[in-house]
Amino acid sequence: MQTKNIAIVGSGLVGSLLAIYLRKRKYEVTVFDRRPDIRTIEFSGRSINLAMSVRGWKTLDKIGIGDTVRELSIPMHKRTMHLTGEPIYHQHYGNDGEAIYSIPRGILNRKMITLAEDAGVVFKFNEKVWDINLPEAKIYTGETEKSEWKEYQYDIVFGCDGAFSRVRHKMQRRSRFNYSQKFLDTGYKELGIPAYLDGTHRLDKNSLHIWPRGKFMLIALPNLDGSFTCTLFMPHEGEDSFEMLTNDNEVKKFWEINFPDTLDLMPGLLEDFRNNPTSALVTTKCYPWSYWDKVALVGDSAHAIVPFYGQGMNAGFEDISVLDDIIEELGDDNWQDIFETYQESRKSNADAIAELSYRNFIEMSSKTADPDFLLRKKIEKRFSQKYPEKWLPLYSRVTFSHRPYEEALNIGDQQAEIMSKVMQMNNIETIWDTEEVEQYILNLLEVKDFKLQS
Amino acid sequence: MQTKNIAIVGSGLVGSLLAIYLRKRKYEVTVFDRRPDIRTIEFSGRSINLAMSVRGWKTLDKIGIGDTVRELSIPMHKRTMHLTGEPIYHQHYGNDGEAIYSIPRGILNRKMITLAEDAGVVFKFNEKVWDINLPEAKIYTGETEKSEWKEYQYDIVFGCDGAFSRVRHKMQRRSRFNYSQKFLDTGYKELGIPAYLDGTHRLDKNSLHIWPRGKFMLIALPNLDGSFTCTLFMPHEGEDSFEMLTNDNEVKKFWEINFPDTLDLMPGLLEDFRNNPTSALVTTKCYPWSYWDKVALVGDSAHAIVPFYGQGMNAGFEDISVLDDIIEELGDDNWQDIFETYQESRKSNADAIAELSYRNFIEMSSKTADPDFLLRKKIEKRFSQKYPEKWLPLYSRVTFSHRPYEEALNIGDQQAEIMSKVMQMNNIETIWDTEEVEQYILNLLEVKDFKLQS
Repeated sequence: MQTKNIAIVGSGLVGSLLAIYLRKRKYEVTVFDRRPDIRTIEFSGRSINLAMSVRGWKTLDKIGIGDTVRELSIPMHKRTMHLTGEPIYHQHYGNDGEAIYSIPRGILNRKMITLAEDAGVVFKFNEKVWDINLPEAKIYTGETEKSEWKEYQYDIVFGCDGAFSRVRHKMQRRSRFNYSQKFLDTGYKELGIPAYLDGTHRLDKNSLHIWPRGKFMLIALPNLDGSFTCTLFMPHEGEDSFEMLTNDNEVKKFWEINFPDTLDLMPGLLEDFRNNPTSALVTTKCYPWSYWDKVALVGDSAHAIVPFYGQGMNAGFEDISVLDDIIEELGDDNWQDIFETYQESRKSNADAIAELSYRNFIEMSSKTADPDFLLRKKIEKRFSQKYPEKWLPLYSRVTFSHRPYEEALNIGDQQAEIMSKVMQMNNIETIWDTEEVEQYILNLLEVKDFKLQS
Repeated sequence: MQTKNIAIVGSGLVGSLLAIYLRKRKYEVTVFDRRPDIRTIEFSGRSINLAMSVRGWKTLDKIGIGDTVRELSIPMHKRTMHLTGEPIYHQHYGNDGEAIYSIPRGILNRKMITLAEDAGVVFKFNEKVWDINLPEAKIYTGETEKSEWKEYQYDIVFGCDGAFSRVRHKMQRRSRFNYSQKFLDTGYKELGIPAYLDGTHRLDKNSLHIWPRGKFMLIALPNLDGSFTCTLFMPHEGEDSFEMLTNDNEVKKFWEINFPDTLDLMPGLLEDFRNNPTSALVTTKCYPWSYWDKVALVGDSAHAIVPFYGQGMNAGFEDISVLDDIIEELGDDNWQDIFETYQESRKSNADAIAELSYRNFIEMSSKTADPDFLLRKKIEKRFSQKYPEKWLPLYSRVTFSHRPYEEALNIGDQQAEIMSKVMQMNNIETIWDTEEVEQYILNLLEVKDFKLQS
């Protein structure tokens, strides 16, 4: 039997990693991208640094490239909170040694493409896919939508072309395809904190820095070269919005009021603000994720999420890992079976991480500065350290475990219910670290008829 | 000042009625449709008869064409329920004289186009709109998507091109446009009951006939020529589904088991079933509904709903009526203002009727045959007849009033809550028409801090 000839649309992180996985299975793999080779251009201006966590690492390690990527990353063990007029403080993400890893998207993407090429993947850059014949797995490329097109015939086509996927768009036009796109009122802009002249970092480099300000916030993630990639999240319109900051003067004034401690760190602020686009944040959902045995969506094309849990890339990589397990288990004779098993296994988890990511926006921008929230976290942490088998915190289940996202969402809701009861105890501010509280939680867990274990 | 030059994409019911409204305001109006003139072709095979109710009539009467349309319609005062092995029975829709009006879509559409032409509207049939330049209100038509296109310049473009609107599709590609399409697992197929040879109806002609069978149902709406237009609603897949009925034999067997009393009424059943397509049911939502002062969506293009409340066309017509009121109130100098006021006023109502229509599917197909449901309706009806100022039933608020759909949904939910409590009274089956029940409802209404009035 001849080997399968597979096309992947999109040379982003998910497209290039999927290509490596499929090459390992000896398929012929061609990756199309409408943009030029990212290794040949400067990539910046509208990126949020990636935060790789265990789901991402597992997928990289499984194919033997985890260590190569680790070299490009900086571990962040904690959040560092910068509140106005208060000393900075830290919130550890997990237990000792647990961290999320900051990597600039462009640097990782370049490395992945090179690794894919080394594995024998063929890349066709600057080749725009305009149409897909779904039942026949044919793709059509050309200079413009109305120019003469070139037709390619494949056995299978993967859509890894992101939130505004052309492949999905074609599926959307067919009957009985469910689809939604929902934009946040909040947008974002990339900014930067350069390294000191000696190449060292201007802030603690093993932290994800947050300046929470309620409806808006600034974050900074470290880069290996001593710089930080910053992102300002803020409403598009209204009071304190991108719409209101139309010139250098307004930006400077806004910064002096809201982020005075960062002014020295960001000498390029005004230039960055002027030059970098304001981008939108979207959640997309769709179903099904495949067409017969011919076409499947992987990553953002199937489930774009907002970035507030740092799980977008991790979820996309987990798709690949799950798909690979399914091919391993079912064999590769029946791709319709493979795709149906894949989409059924992933859909509810994609919906769950979409919901969790949306909720985390609220948490990061406002609650992280709320004393009640902090007390809650302290109680939870204390309990979970004493009874790790009874309580894995939601953040850890999402970020430091391989348990399904859907389970994380469900158990997280149950835990939140318990914690709400705990927070209503008399004098909880003073008794929070007593046996009484501990016993109360144990009792509440007893009542819940499910296992909170990981 | 020169008069506005307006294009409407879509010559369906909403497009042609909007054209008449805009002509009355002396604008130049051109309607484009990719299909041929419906007056020149046979239109059948995938239609559900329309049920015009007061929102639709109001919009027609306001422009002086209500009576012309009334002549094409048959009033339906009640549902007639056909349960297996039980005598048929009736449920009146409203009070004396209240009715919904059955009209075949094709017949109404033909009349509306003629009325629009008489009013001076220009129709361009067989002219396919492929692209719209939103900020410049330009539209592009041509033989095919890749052929040479013709460019037209307008002042304003209205998208009245239905659930799969090209105009909306163009808006969807821009950032920050929220959109969803969600298909039901249930589809539908048009069937027919012909007239007797003498032109009379084979069933009570002033009824909407329903054969509820749980997960599927058959309905029949009367036509003036003595025939009925029937629709079979049924899941696409699974047990008792379109997928399972693949040949005449299977259809016949299915019919003998489930609709034996209709076999004599439907001599063309097998032919209809074979020839007519199985269509999908979709709910679409989007926002915003307009682009600057240039483009706006009206009717299904903005809010396609499932047909189970008979409100799709009525809601589209109400859009027109509301839009016209807004133009009257604001004047027509600032169309961005007009469009923003229009979409803000209509969006929550469109969402509400979408929700109500979806829920009514459950009610029509299963609950209408449920004794508990019938008792509920009886109690509600009795109370509302005695205290009409305190209780307008949900169905009446949607169908026989001009109150906003959003209000209907909200008050309907509160009423349902009250009725659930009433149904839990001891021996409610025997005491349902006593003063005790009446007083209990009055007390519950007292507690609710809102007016249930119409």
